[in-house]
Amino acid sequence: MSDENIVFVGSKPVMNYVLAVVTQLNKKETENVVIKARGRAISRAVDVAEIVRNKFVNDVNVQKITTSTETITRDDNSSANVSAIEITLKR
Amino acid sequence: MSDENIVFVGSKPVMNYVLAVVTQLNKKETENVVIKARGRAISRAVDVAEIVRNKFVNDVNVQKITTSTETITRDDNSSANVSAIEITLKR
Repeated sequence: MSDENIVFVGSKPVMNYVLAVVTQLNKKETENVVIKARGRAISRAVDVAEIVRNKFVNDVNVQKITTSTETITRDDNSSANVSAIEITLKR
Repeated sequence: MSDENIVFVGSKPVMNYVLAVVTQLNKKETENVVIKARGRAISRAVDVAEIVRNKFVNDVNVQKITTSTETITRDDNSSANVSAIEITLKR
């Protein structure tokens, strides 16, 4: 896992994350980039992977997609479950 | 593919779709249920899969997750790309 680069997708415009992923993939030593997101940003993470694959880097493939559930604890010690996704791109 | 059941996730409350998936999975002849969604509903589709797996049906696994891009044509003939996801649950 040490050669993996991770891009966390949040609420910024989708092209910010596309640029981050493309930059990582263009480094000579990069084989994998992992796109991670939680909650509503999951849709945006899928957009990022699709845009990178279709418009920017033609020799990249989706190697693996996994989903999980994370428990978030708020300041008042209440907790909530949130879904998460990891999309691994490999060139 | 003939034994697959498809649940399309849209903008209704997440539990509506959870119930639909659980109902499908409890039919005797069901092996796979495919959860499909586009655009912002993708996050909800992941929620549905995670809730089914963690809270309702213990012997179900995520068999496959694929993403794709679909082109939507609007009434005025303009078009837009939208990301889509398919999550296959297998029991």
